[in-house]
Order: sequence, then C-alpha cells, then structure tokens
Amino acid sequence: MGLTAVERAAHYAARSPRFAKVTSKHLAYFQSVLDKPCSTSHRKGKMLTDAEAIRPFNVDWMHQVQGAAPAVLMPTCATQVSEILTYCQAEKLAVVPQGGNTGLVYGAGPVHDELVLSTRLMNAMPVVSKSTMSVEAESGVVLQQCQEACAKEGLLFPLTMGSKGSSMIGGNVSTNAGGIYFARYGSMHSNVLGIEVVTARGDVLNLMSTLRKDNAGYDLKHLFIGSEGTLGVVTRAAIKLYTQPASRQLALFHLTDFASVLELYHLANLYLAECLSAFEVMDGESMTTSPAEEVPYERTCKNDVFRSGKDFSAAYFCVLVETNGSSAEHDLDKLSCFAEAAQTKLGEKLNGGGQFEPILSQSAAQAEQLWALREGIPVHLASGGLIYKYDVAFPIDKFYGIVEHTRKILYGQQKMDPDEVIVVGYGHFGDGNVHLNVVDLTRSHGEQLDAALYPAVYEYCATHGGSISAEHGVGMQKRDYLHLSRSQETIQLMKDVKVMMDPNGILNPYKVLPLE
Amino acid sequence: MGLTAVERAAHYAARSPRFAKVTSKHLAYFQSVLDKPCSTSHRKGKMLTDAEAIRPFNVDWMHQVQGAAPAVLMPTCATQVSEILTYCQAEKLAVVPQGGNTGLVYGAGPVHDELVLSTRLMNAMPVVSKSTMSVEAESGVVLQQCQEACAKEGLLFPLTMGSKGSSMIGGNVSTNAGGIYFARYGSMHSNVLGIEVVTARGDVLNLMSTLRKDNAGYDLKHLFIGSEGTLGVVTRAAIKLYTQPASRQLALFHLTDFASVLELYHLANLYLAECLSAFEVMDGESMTTSPAEEVPYERTCKNDVFRSGKDFSAAYFCVLVETNGSSAEHDLDKLSCFAEAAQTKLGEKLNGGGQFEPILSQSAAQAEQLWALREGIPVHLASGGLIYKYDVAFPIDKFYGIVEHTRKILYGQQKMDPDEVIVVGYGHFGDGNVHLNVVDLTRSHGEQLDAALYPAVYEYCATHGGSISAEHGVGMQKRDYLHLSRSQETIQLMKDVKVMMDPNGILNPYKVLPLE
Repeated sequence: MGLTAVERAAHYAARSPRFAKVTSKHLAYFQSVLDKPCSTSHRKGKMLTDAEAIRPFNVDWMHQVQGAAPAVLMPTCATQVSEILTYCQAEKLAVVPQGGNTGLVYGAGPVHDELVLSTRLMNAMPVVSKSTMSVEAESGVVLQQCQEACAKEGLLFPLTMGSKGSSMIGGNVSTNAGGIYFARYGSMHSNVLGIEVVTARGDVLNLMSTLRKDNAGYDLKHLFIGSEGTLGVVTRAAIKLYTQPASRQLALFHLTDFASVLELYHLANLYLAECLSAFEVMDGESMTTSPAEEVPYERTCKNDVFRSGKDFSAAYFCVLVETNGSSAEHDLDKLSCFAEAAQTKLGEKLNGGGQFEPILSQSAAQAEQLWALREGIPVHLASGGLIYKYDVAFPIDKFYGIVEHTRKILYGQQKMDPDEVIVVGYGHFGDGNVHLNVVDLTRSHGEQLDAALYPAVYEYCATHGGSISAEHGVGMQKRDYLHLSRSQETIQLMKDVKVMMDPNGILNPYKVLPLE
Repeated sequence: MGLTAVERAAHYAARSPRFAKVTSKHLAYFQSVLDKPCSTSHRKGKMLTDAEAIRPFNVDWMHQVQGAAPAVLMPTCATQVSEILTYCQAEKLAVVPQGGNTGLVYGAGPVHDELVLSTRLMNAMPVVSKSTMSVEAESGVVLQQCQEACAKEGLLFPLTMGSKGSSMIGGNVSTNAGGIYFARYGSMHSNVLGIEVVTARGDVLNLMSTLRKDNAGYDLKHLFIGSEGTLGVVTRAAIKLYTQPASRQLALFHLTDFASVLELYHLANLYLAECLSAFEVMDGESMTTSPAEEVPYERTCKNDVFRSGKDFSAAYFCVLVETNGSSAEHDLDKLSCFAEAAQTKLGEKLNGGGQFEPILSQSAAQAEQLWALREGIPVHLASGGLIYKYDVAFPIDKFYGIVEHTRKILYGQQKMDPDEVIVVGYGHFGDGNVHLNVVDLTRSHGEQLDAALYPAVYEYCATHGGSISAEHGVGMQKRDYLHLSRSQETIQLMKDVKVMMDPNGILNPYKVLPLE
C-alpha cells in the first residue's frame, strides 16, 4: 500500500474512545507491580518507557503497521500478568500481548496507544520430561531454544517454521502456529497438553497438565489456542513430544504440471505413509528468486514462462519430500520404492521433461541446504521489493488455482508487467496451505495492487472452498474479511465469547473481530 | 450401589422446577416439525411416545440410571434439530441428546422427564474423499459403519474402541472419544476437521470443512468437542483420515512387574516409533476373568496373588503391542529389534519368570483373537457381578498406583474377601489411561463399596496428578467430583460458557456441571 506504517494503523481502525489514556498514575502502578519479585519466578519484571527502547515493540516484523504504545510491560510470571490485566480492565486501558513479534497479520503490535505486554521475561529454561514425553515452557521461550532442549533428551518438538529463531512459545500457542511438520504431527490443538493463561479479566487459569487424555469437563484450553491473544495471555504451556527420528531423508523432485504434484502426493501417502514428515511445494518462480549462492545444485527452474506474461499455467514445480523415521535403512528403502513408483506413473513429467534428476540429500549438511532453499524464500522475496503475502488454504486439489487466478488479474486485467511484479506460490501442500506472494520489484504499484488484490484474493477463497487464513491468523489484516470464511452465526458466537471473556474489550483490541 | 436405576437418578439430582412439563400441545408441535420432509435430507423425522418403544432410550447401557422421558424425537437434519431446540428454549423444555447410548457416565440419557433427542435417523451413507483424505458423516452413523466406508477407499478412520458396533459419530465427537488408537492418531480435537452443530439456542452453526489448516478466527468447533451435548447437538462431522496400514502386527508380552512395563513402553517408542499404534496393558486379574474359550493360547496369567489377598503389588502384566505400517517387512524387522532389545534389557522379567514366550500374531485371524481378548474384558467383567468402572488418567509412571491403592482400601481397610470382590486394572498405557474395575461377584456389597470407593478413588486422582476422567467424560456420574480435577476459576468459566450458550439450561441438564 502507498501508506506509511503509521497511516496504515489509522486506516485499519480509528482509536476507540472507550479506552482511557495512559497516565503517570497508571505507569506508577505498573512499576510497583513489576518491581516486586514474583512469588513464583522470584524475578522482578521490567517496564520500558524510553522511546528508543520501545520502538521495536511498536512496529511489526514487516514494518507495515506502527503503533504508539507509551510503555512496554515485561512481567515475569502469571501473577504479575494477572495484576496488570485486572488493573487494565478496571481502568479501561487497552493492552496488546506480544511474544517474538514475528506475526504477519498485524496481530501482535499496538495499533494506537495500547500498552504492550511483552512475554519476553517469562523465559525460564524449559523442563523436558522423558517419562511423560512432554515439555513445559514459559511463553517467552524462543521456539528454537525449546526445540533444542527437547532434542538434548532425544525428543522431537512437533513445531518448526522459518521464524523459529525469534518466535516464542506463547505466540505459537496463541496463534495455533502451523509450519512444516503440521501434516505429520498436527496442530497446536493436537499437541498442547495444558496451558497456564491469564484471562482478559485477570483470572489465572491453571490448565497445566501433561496428561494425554483428560475429559474432565469443557476443554477450555482450546479457547485460547488460536484466538491470537484476544481472550487471554498464555503464560506457560505443556506440549506433547515425539521420538526424535533417527533418520531424516530429503528428496527434491521437479514436476512439469500441477496434476503431477497431486499424483506425487498421493504416492507419497501410499509409499512413505507413516514416515512422511513434509511435502513442500514451490513453484518455479519462487525458486528462481532465491539467490544462486544458496542453491545447492545447478539452477534448474526456468521462469521464462512467467516473464513472458503469456502462459500462466505451464509452471515447473519443485517438491521437497522429507521422511522422519526410526530406521535409515527402512526409510531409504521406502523412498526408493516411492521414487520408482513415481517414475513409472509420471514418466517424463517427473524430472521436468528430462532436464533434471531427483536429488536425494547425501548428508545432514545437504539436507540443511535443501531446507534453507525452502525457508529462505519468504526472506528473499521480502528483500526484492514491496511484498504482499497471502496465507490461504484450499482443498489440496485446488492448491494452485489462487496463484493462477492472481496472475490473470495482474497480468491480464491489470496489464501489469511480469518483469516488475512477480506472483509466486509455495507452501505446505499436505495441509492445502499455499503462500501466495506478490512482489512489486519497482515499489511503485502499491495503489494499483491494493485495488486489484483486496478483496479479490479473499473472495476467491470464499468461492473456492478455501480459508482466508491457513496458519497466520486474522490479526488486523484480515479482520474485515472474516465473513468470507465464516458465517454470520459463527462470527456472532465469536463476538459473544469475546464479550463474555473481556467485557471492556481491552485485550488486543481491533484484532480478529471489530470492536463491538 | 444398592439403589434401583430410578432411585439412582433421583439420588444424583432432584428435578428442577425451572423446566416445564411436556404437554400434548408440545408433542403436537414436535410431530408437525418431524412430519415435514426436511429440505436437506428429504426425509421425515419420527417421534416415539409408546412406553415400550421408549424404554431403551430411558436407561443407560449399564442399567444404572433410568429416566422417564415422555417422548423420543428423531429428527433427520439440522433444520429439524434447530426448530426443536428453538422451541424447547422458548418453552423451557429440557432435552437430552442421545446417539448410540453406549456412554458410561450417565451422560446420554434422561434423568427425569427430559425429552430424548435421538440422532439415529441422521445416518446417511458417509462420504469419503480420497483427495482430501477425510470423511463427512452424519451424527447417527455407527462408528463401525464409518470405519468400513473409509476402509473401502483404502483409508483409516482414526478412532476405534470396544463400542464401535453401537456408538455413533455424533456421540464420539461430543464426548471426545478416545479408544485404542489415541496415542497414535490423537484425539477428536486433533482429528475433527469440521462440524455442523445446532446450539442450545437453536442456531445452526455450519463449521463444516475439510481444510487441514484454517485459522480464520476462534476455532469454535472445540467448544462442542467433548462438552457432552450440553452446549449444542452435533449433527454432522468431517474427520481426518490416514493411509490404511498395509501391515498390522500384534505381539503379546508378559511382564512380572510394573517397572518392566514402563521400560518396555520406552523401548517401544524407541524401536517401533512411527509404526507403534497401540500399547495396551492388562493386569493378570483382568486376563483371568476372560472366559477360556476366547483366549487363543494356554491360560498364562496366574491370579493367586490377588486371591490370597496378601501381596497386592506383585502382579503379572500382559502387554499387547500393535504396529500399523506400510511395509510388513519393515514392521516385522522393527518388532524383532524391539523384542531383542526388550529381552536384553528385561531378561527374566520379560516372560513372566520363564513361564511364557512372547506371542506374535501369525495371521489376521489371530490378531483379531488377541484384540478380542482385550476388548472382551469390560464385557466379561460386567457379566460377572455388580461392576464399578473408573476411567481415570495419570502420568504413565503412576499408571498402576490407583489399582494397588484400591486393593489396599478394599482388602486392607475394609477387610473384603478377594474371592468376592475383584479389583482389576487395564487400559491404554501410552495415554496413561487406566480402567479401574471393581466387581462384586456376590452383588451384595453395594453399600460398603459405595462408601469405601466414593470419593476415595477420585481423591486419589487429585492428589497424584491424575484426572477423574480420561476418556469417558463427566456426565452425571462425575459431576460432583469435577473440582478434584479442575480449579474453582476453571469451573466458573465452564459455567459462564454454559450460561452464555444455553441461557435456560435446557440442554442435557444435570450433566457435567450442576444447574446454576
């Protein structure tokens, strides 16, 4: 968009007069809460009010929306969070919870002058239990640190994604983060065993548990998983772990058309079955935008078809298939049967018309390189120009339609130049989760793109059985499109839940649902 | 208990005066709703008022609690359910939703004169999609029929349990049914992709979806999964499917002590890992109560230790280990490495002091026999006398403590005769889910057992990190013990949710939570 980050905040929502302005009296109270060492953590909290120190908390990772929080509150435990939220509810002060601030839908930053409640100081070393195969972690623990603590005990943390070095457990739970292993190990709704959460009213709910089965009444933790910090602040979580795979194999295939990708996926389910851990699809264009030095093999995908602006459907697809298993011998055997079946079934379509050979990683280092290829895509695209990111989901046989549709809009209807504006699609195929990215290399077509893409992309989701948000959530960015994925009755019940939990609407306002 | 089924209903809860009595005017209205062919199902519903026809709907499977519903309403679609519930909310008529009526906590039957809303006529053939690997089924479809429809397409339905021949999809979803494959494939919260549900107010919520990832706002389906029909009536569900395993192997081990069971489980996670599909533990006593003709091998577990009433801790354990995988060769190879490692690690403890050899099923028929051994336990126990069933969960290293504790209470403190009252434990070890069963062979110790076991068993759960309900739910049976597994704040929020969803409390009253 042609707006500045500050203008964009105002564009999404006017500041609600229902919220009080933060005064020095309020700040003094917060300071007093945070100055007491917490009875459970034995640590003092912290408050930032210096403009320079606050700056990074006030703007999202994409530098799209900038708020003006007057202070950042950094409690160290649920008790402090509870005192803060109880007070804010009474004083009608708006608060936005923030973890690693890696969100992509403007869900974790202030829009106007909300206070930032940062979970960063709730970051004690995670406790891994081999006996219950679970980990208990505070919400400010960085995802990668949690993964590493589990790996040390021979156990696998079931979530990983590109932002693992910055994103935090509390945010992962609150946004129902998906990522690469979702198809194999499931969602946060599947893997979170328990949480400690402070509700918007300030009540501490101890829903911590490492029990696998526990049908004692309504399972309230699910209210907080994926509700993006609008109903409560998750302060701790217990998460299910899996046996660390002894064998991790990666293969890269090239396919000439989308039907072959679909066929390859069905063969993977049949031949790799229980050891299939990821099936990532990247179209040719998204591969060619990666810098050459990070590609561990001869550049293979041609992008002339896109640049020509003529044939939008004949794309090359790269498919990264990963297996996680307990026996390298068995997994390699399965992979070899799979590759053979694919060769038989797909023939020339499998290796890009005879130009490529399937690549099987020969070492852990090469496996890392292949993954870096996939995980590097969003970063490289963002560095190329003004980027529009859409995280949407479809039934898998309709996975790529949205990319083709967007090309038709931009190159066809809008007569844009494929050398100036790139449209790519990649994502987690097994989940039907496509990341549609539009990059304006010239950074000059903002207004035209805004008009052409919003709400066209989301409307396409609505009419093709898709969801406007696969894994990124709604935040502020998709709030006004929610009705395209959810019925009026469903949205009404969401609002009823919000009002019940947060009568003054102080927690993460302007996000997910409009203020009532 | 020494009460009749009708007395037991009154014992649990007095009839609330807030509910109206069903009159002929009400019945005429219901008849008119059910007489219209539904616009979606094109089928007419049905109403039963004949006392004989209604009898089986009025009493639970265990014949423990008997209500007096004046009518059974059998709608064929969500629209009819909606009209019924809207009317009942307006007229303050209490309603209990009922599926296969196989519940074990008195959650699915009338307590007093509630109307029964049976889902049995919502039973169109399930629709299986190979492309999205999911099935859509109406709530009245019997679990086994759903499993079979999926198997025909080469896909595995992720839930199975002893009651599969009678229990229904709507009840499975509403009670978050667990069963044997829970540890491998996860809970209903993991596997349900979407539902259609009629809320207690009568709103039809279309939350149907076969999308794997869908973070568009609060994920409201989780409110209805496991809330036992107190918030809404599930009328349809879409459920995730898995690749049908080409290989299914079963092995039976005998172990001399509980520590060895724990060790064997850790070895199973290490060696069988991704193909481990079940790890069921049965103590010696639960095996000896199975009739000999169904045991496919020489009777092996001795129960003298229990009968003697002296040493309650030295038990034999039988462990049934199942693998599901895509290659019989690989799975057998893994099983053989596993058995070898177990032999090395456990030595004499593995085969019951040298008396037994591990049994590996040689055919599908023998596999069925081994499973029948496990699944037959509850049926055989129930036929042996007056049975007390407790479905509880613990961290797995504390799995068997509750059984030993109960024996100490009954044989020690209460001086009961182990030849008259049997205490057994079996269950889904990987989930920490133990089924504690107490059988009074004489059917004469009801009052003494009542006094000795309630609330002692549940209090033991509370003080040992357990849950009063692993998979059976709360129903009416455990309602008054909920505070032993959930904090006051948590129960208060459950009540807030109930009041928000069902202002007059008409839906499945007296269950899960006390009437407010």
